[in-house]
Amino acid sequence: MRRIAVDMDGVLADAYSQFIKKHEEEFSEKLLTKDLIGKAEFEVFPNGRSYATAPGFFRHLLVIENSQQVLEKLNRKYEVFIVSAATEFPNSLLEKHSWLVDHFPFIQWKQMVFCGSKEIVSADIMIDDHFKNLDYFKGETILFTQPHNQKADSGRHKRVYSWIEIEQLLL
Amino acid sequence: MRRIAVDMDGVLADAYSQFIKKHEEEFSEKLLTKDLIGKAEFEVFPNGRSYATAPGFFRHLLVIENSQQVLEKLNRKYEVFIVSAATEFPNSLLEKHSWLVDHFPFIQWKQMVFCGSKEIVSADIMIDDHFKNLDYFKGETILFTQPHNQKADSGRHKRVYSWIEIEQLLL
Repeated sequence: MRRIAVDMDGVLADAYSQFIKKHEEEFSEKLLTKDLIGKAEFEVFPNGRSYATAPGFFRHLLVIENSQQVLEKLNRKYEVFIVSAATEFPNSLLEKHSWLVDHFPFIQWKQMVFCGSKEIVSADIMIDDHFKNLDYFKGETILFTQPHNQKADSGRHKRVYSWIEIEQLLL
Repeated sequence: MRRIAVDMDGVLADAYSQFIKKHEEEFSEKLLTKDLIGKAEFEVFPNGRSYATAPGFFRHLLVIENSQQVLEKLNRKYEVFIVSAATEFPNSLLEKHSWLVDHFPFIQWKQMVFCGSKEIVSADIMIDDHFKNLDYFKGETILFTQPHNQKADSGRHKRVYSWIEIEQLLL
């Protein structure tokens, strides 16, 4: 059974909406998608690290469209691990665990990985929105499109725009 | 630089003392080391899972002797990752993170992995007290002696009894 490492923020969880909301609350400035394209998250949201550090930030993120139904199908055919960079923001650890239990109840605790660097992850396929994770990965790589990576050449990574595309690719 | 995956409970953190204390509080029965030898932890401590689930259990564990000074030296010569099975007990996630920050301040957030199954971990060397983690690991394996594994044949794993032995072995 082939193993897939699936990222959370930007792949399962919509962190952008939450950053936009916090940014608007602080600066009374409503950012639009066009303002985000091609820019790193912490460049667009200068106080993004402090939002992500605050309790509650990761607990109520929206679920990215179609991720639940497609991941549930993948979970029957592949060995799925959810691999999330979380240790930079210690409050996110329990929040991400609870969020997964709420929205992806078919994912068991044995399938969760909360880490720092993803270089230690061994799998056949990685789905992620960050080059810093995909570039080091030795297996098949799928780049999930998000504003910050939208302008970049995807290089050896297969770019997808939705979970429907992932379904077509892997199922 | 070779990569080492180092377990927490039973290797860096003394979980046994805390289980013994909680067991004594509940059953007024003081367990001795001889009572623990050759028995799985949750066999000796019938309510061990509920102790481990309760908030606070992992926050104040004692540090295993000489682990701090030896790991600090290893951290200069190897790429060290701390890999702890934590997602079964969600409250342990933040507690383990805080415990590492307190007792192993030279370990950065990028070096921490809180997971379920350790099958996803890729490294050259693994130090662990559980066969279930070492048996699947493809690299060099070091079995850290604890009462539960003391009677077992270590098989292909190199058995050590202390961090001084690890120092002699790897430095």
